[in-house]
This record gives sequence, structure tokens and C-alpha cells, in this order.
Amino acid sequence: MDAELGTRDRIVKAATVLFQNKGYHATGLNEILRKSNAPKGSLYYYFPDGKEQLALEAINQTKIFIEKTIRERLELIQDPAESIKNSIEEMADNLNAGEDEKLSFRSNKKVSINLIAMETATSSETLRKACDSAFNTWQNVYAQKLIDGGFERKRAENLSLIIQTMIEGAIIMSLTKKVINL
Amino acid sequence: MDAELGTRDRIVKAATVLFQNKGYHATGLNEILRKSNAPKGSLYYYFPDGKEQLALEAINQTKIFIEKTIRERLELIQDPAESIKNSIEEMADNLNAGEDEKLSFRSNKKVSINLIAMETATSSETLRKACDSAFNTWQNVYAQKLIDGGFERKRAENLSLIIQTMIEGAIIMSLTKKVINL
Repeated sequence: MDAELGTRDRIVKAATVLFQNKGYHATGLNEILRKSNAPKGSLYYYFPDGKEQLALEAINQTKIFIEKTIRERLELIQDPAESIKNSIEEMADNLNAGEDEKLSFRSNKKVSINLIAMETATSSETLRKACDSAFNTWQNVYAQKLIDGGFERKRAENLSLIIQTMIEGAIIMSLTKKVINL
Repeated sequence: MDAELGTRDRIVKAATVLFQNKGYHATGLNEILRKSNAPKGSLYYYFPDGKEQLALEAINQTKIFIEKTIRERLELIQDPAESIKNSIEEMADNLNAGEDEKLSFRSNKKVSINLIAMETATSSETLRKACDSAFNTWQNVYAQKLIDGGFERKRAENLSLIIQTMIEGAIIMSLTKKVINL
């Protein structure tokens, strides 16, 4: 139950998981409160502007967490292609992890933003920009690794866009084919 | 306003567009009725089981429409790689088409199922299976073209999965980067 996390953090973690699993629109504030075991009133205390403000924080925290994760993995292997392949395989393994891990907010392993990105791209400029920034941030980590490995900048940027695109597509396809269960 | 379409068809078209643009959960039945200019009561007359039944029909019609579209495009060029490249470029052009076309149900050009696929993958087995069947159907068209062009079956199936994955990923990325506006 991540009781050691502060109330604000628990709310953000619960929202992150619910927005990805059920979607932004289908997730009610009461459900977030219940899942985060937070006292009534704490949601508006920490997020006075409501659900959109909370979603913005969830996206930004996911951006930072995933950037850090990718960066750490890419540092393990020097060859850029090998390290990126390895990092994606680990990502896929995490998405396939068991039910018990799925329920842990702390592990955060199954976190993705693509459902909320699709849902809000045309309805909230604030959230669209936050998702765009997250995708760009992750792409930049791949691009930098490729550049460090000798790839020309333009080519590295193109490849990193393709990598990010394939990852996002793979999450949709895997969920739909029930290979993973976010 | 596609007045020449029957009421049932207008309801399905409106639902298809709304489910993709706003999402399955965010779209209310009243909005579908309004957009389809259908008389009150007609929705439950044609779809007595409600929103899920309507969504199933929307996904199935999209499956058939997109399969036909891909098939027609791939027939235009004999070389499989060239024909698939061409078909995807046309898809991208359609997604970039102007606002006026966007509002046409008839053109159906901007139709995709990936938002509803993401939203319902873990909440409705009926809709997950329908989306899975749609993705498989489209993949099979690419795979058959590759096989006809001399590719070995296993390799053709792998490539067609990659093609479909990249298309779905590209829709998310393009929407988030505001390159397209479904």
C-alpha cells in the first residue's frame, strides 16, 4: 500500500496507474482517493485545479521516471544498437510481469502515457503538450546514445523517433492481443 | 450531413468518429444521437444492448472499410514494398486532410480504432477481441501482398505485424505532436 509515501505522492501514483489502465475520462476522483488511501479533501488540497492538474503531475512524474530508467539501462552497454535493444526487451519483460507487481505503485514498471495521450490530444492543450514533452524527452535519450555511438545527428533523431513510435505502437498491439495486461 | 444514409448507418458513423476523437468513455449516447441527427429512441431500437453493442458495430465496420481501402491501394502497385509504402503515405495524407473533410462521416478517411482499443482492452473482452480481429485482418492484407511478392510466410507475417505496430504508434505520436488532428 506504499504507506510510507506521502499523501500527495500516493495520490499521483494512484492516478498514474488508473489513467493508464482505465483512461483519463473513465477514472473518477473518488476512485483515485480510494486507491491512494488518501483522506477526503486531500485531492483538492494538493490539486486545487482538479483532475487536469493531477494528470499533468502524473504525466510529468512518468516522464522523469521513464527518462531515468531508459538512461540507466542505456549506460549498461556501450554499443548503441545493443543497448537500445536490451532496454526495450527489459521494458517488454516488465510489461509482462505478474499481477502482484502490477498492483504496486512503487515499482511503476508498467507505466505508460499513451492512453492519456490519445484521449487528451485534442481536448487539452496542457496535457497534449505534457505528453509531447515526455515523448521528446525519451526520444532524446535514445538519440544521444546513438550520437555518442557515432551516428550522425539527423539520422540519430530519425531513428529515435522510429524507436519511440514502435514502442507506443507495440503497447497498443500487445494490450489488444492480450500479450500484456497493463 | 449524410442525410442520404439510413438512421442506423448515421448512428454508427457518428459513433465511430466520436469514439476515435473523444474516446469511448467520454462519448455520451446523447452526443451520438445529436451528431447523427437520429430521432430519440432510435439508438436503443437499433442497439438494444447499448453503447458496447454500438461500439462493436463501429469497430467491425471500420475493420471492413480499412481492409478494403488497404487492399485496393496495394493492388495499384505490384512491388510489395513500394505498394505498402505508397499505401501508408496515402493514409498519412488522409490523416492530414483539412477540417472540412474531418467532419465528413462519409469519407471515413480519418478513421482509426486505436483509442478505443487502448480504452477497452482490459475492460471489455468483446471490444478487445473485435479490435484484435481488426488489427489481424489488416495485417493479413499486408502479409498476403508480401507473400505474393515472394516473401516467405513467416517473414511476411513478422513484417506485417511491424507495419501495423508502426502505423498505430505513428497515429499516437502524430496526434500528440499535433501533426494530425483526428
